[in-house]
Amino acid sequence: MTATKKLIECVPNFSEGRDPTKIEKIVQPFRGKEGVKLLDYQRDQNHNRMVVTVVGEPQALRQSLVEAVGIAVEQIDMTKHEGQHPRMGAVDVVPFIPIRNVTMAEAVAFSKAVAREIAERYNLPIFLYEASASTPARQNLAVVRKGQFEGMPEKLKQLEWKPDFGPDHVHPTAGVTAVGARMPLVAFNVNLGTDNLEIANQIALKVRHISGGLRFCKGIGVELKDRGIVQVSMNMTDYTKTALYRALELVRIEARRYGVNVVGSEIVGLVPMEALIDTAVYYMGIENFSINQVLEARLME
Amino acid sequence: MTATKKLIECVPNFSEGRDPTKIEKIVQPFRGKEGVKLLDYQRDQNHNRMVVTVVGEPQALRQSLVEAVGIAVEQIDMTKHEGQHPRMGAVDVVPFIPIRNVTMAEAVAFSKAVAREIAERYNLPIFLYEASASTPARQNLAVVRKGQFEGMPEKLKQLEWKPDFGPDHVHPTAGVTAVGARMPLVAFNVNLGTDNLEIANQIALKVRHISGGLRFCKGIGVELKDRGIVQVSMNMTDYTKTALYRALELVRIEARRYGVNVVGSEIVGLVPMEALIDTAVYYMGIENFSINQVLEARLME
Repeated sequence: MTATKKLIECVPNFSEGRDPTKIEKIVQPFRGKEGVKLLDYQRDQNHNRMVVTVVGEPQALRQSLVEAVGIAVEQIDMTKHEGQHPRMGAVDVVPFIPIRNVTMAEAVAFSKAVAREIAERYNLPIFLYEASASTPARQNLAVVRKGQFEGMPEKLKQLEWKPDFGPDHVHPTAGVTAVGARMPLVAFNVNLGTDNLEIANQIALKVRHISGGLRFCKGIGVELKDRGIVQVSMNMTDYTKTALYRALELVRIEARRYGVNVVGSEIVGLVPMEALIDTAVYYMGIENFSINQVLEARLME
Repeated sequence: MTATKKLIECVPNFSEGRDPTKIEKIVQPFRGKEGVKLLDYQRDQNHNRMVVTVVGEPQALRQSLVEAVGIAVEQIDMTKHEGQHPRMGAVDVVPFIPIRNVTMAEAVAFSKAVAREIAERYNLPIFLYEASASTPARQNLAVVRKGQFEGMPEKLKQLEWKPDFGPDHVHPTAGVTAVGARMPLVAFNVNLGTDNLEIANQIALKVRHISGGLRFCKGIGVELKDRGIVQVSMNMTDYTKTALYRALELVRIEARRYGVNVVGSEIVGLVPMEALIDTAVYYMGIENFSINQVLEARLME
């Protein structure tokens, strides 16, 4: 067995969530292509934004994406765009996620090659972000996007905000795009047997990275009003280094301080199987387990 | 997304574990075929037997298997076969296992169609076993195989052992073959913090089906001499109905009686991802989880 098919996920965000005709045109390049699988696309009318989830082999994925970006640049006029979600371009952000037989270094190199191609082909200024960022100041998308579409012309005049690829001025109708590689995000929420939001917030503080907790964990307290409970809502930003069970057990430990029990948990959206298998291996104490023992891992070789 | 690729696993056992030339000939039909993936083949010289693990789409898998059976019938002479493992034919047993988008009923129908084809094409008497068995007495392979190759001529003379397909006499050099559908087996062992084999045996008695335990669990006590511990060695015969975590927790509960702790566990060989994900979902108390949230499940649609 020498086949090692490489798989990369891409979750491009397009600034069009209302016009079904435009949406279908943009999504079209991801359909029915050998080596590319469109898993999902969700549009939000309030956000006026569409999030596409697609997985593919690198070259096929690249071709589809470059094509879709071209259509979005043509179809979306940012000078007329309004919506609740922060945005700076027609193709607002393009994250690439290594899925199978791809290292993060390879995903970064891939993201840069794609960024260069779309910059040159469509005359789009590109900021590299996350693991692909050219400086630490550009890692965080919120910082890169600050000022949004309307503020970009001023922002790009600053030396420290010269784009990584493409022209050093904003595309008149398509704005600016962020491209980068990152680990898969897992949205993992732990429910608590209390309606006290302050307790969830206090626990989130202890568990999340920024305030002293786990390195690859973001978190806030959230109220589930219909159920009369609260939850610690987390984004696990690298489950290979900060395992889901560790976050769960830390929440449980902190909750004891308040005499509160963990009453359940949830995973929102997609999760790589390894994040859950890792957790099963921990709780069952399975010794010397290899992911190659998982039938589906072998099927995807 | 309407694609629903059907996948069936097949683990045929061939009575040749010594001659590399014959082994390669038999395995050849599973290589480089569209829609068929050879995951593994292991030969055992003492057993003089080879176990092939292959997964494929039904029609492609069927063609490869029929071809391999033909080669094995041609290459293996059971009148000269000797080895430690019980065996009754050149193609001793052919289990089919539903993996994806295939029900057990479909796997049974598929196994019968394949059985009929190899019976007619190669003049092989076939017993259907496990879920495909035509009578309860034929479910258990050990019962079907009792008497082995040398005893089959006498056995087939009995009315209750008339083969399900093919001639009602033994193939002179290839003997008899068992074909059937079954659930994936998971070999799951739980290690105990004691060197007392009697304790492992007593716990196995409580946990396994035959003596009053879990419906889809077989088990015995085993000594791990090099580590100075014992284990409850289990075969989980339907993890969708008897979950791994339930067997583990029952072993833990029974071990308390002896003041013995569970010190680890192991999974031998392949395991379907759902068996472990199910376990993770239990231990983390994940609510409303769907296997469709697993990225790899989506990729295999």
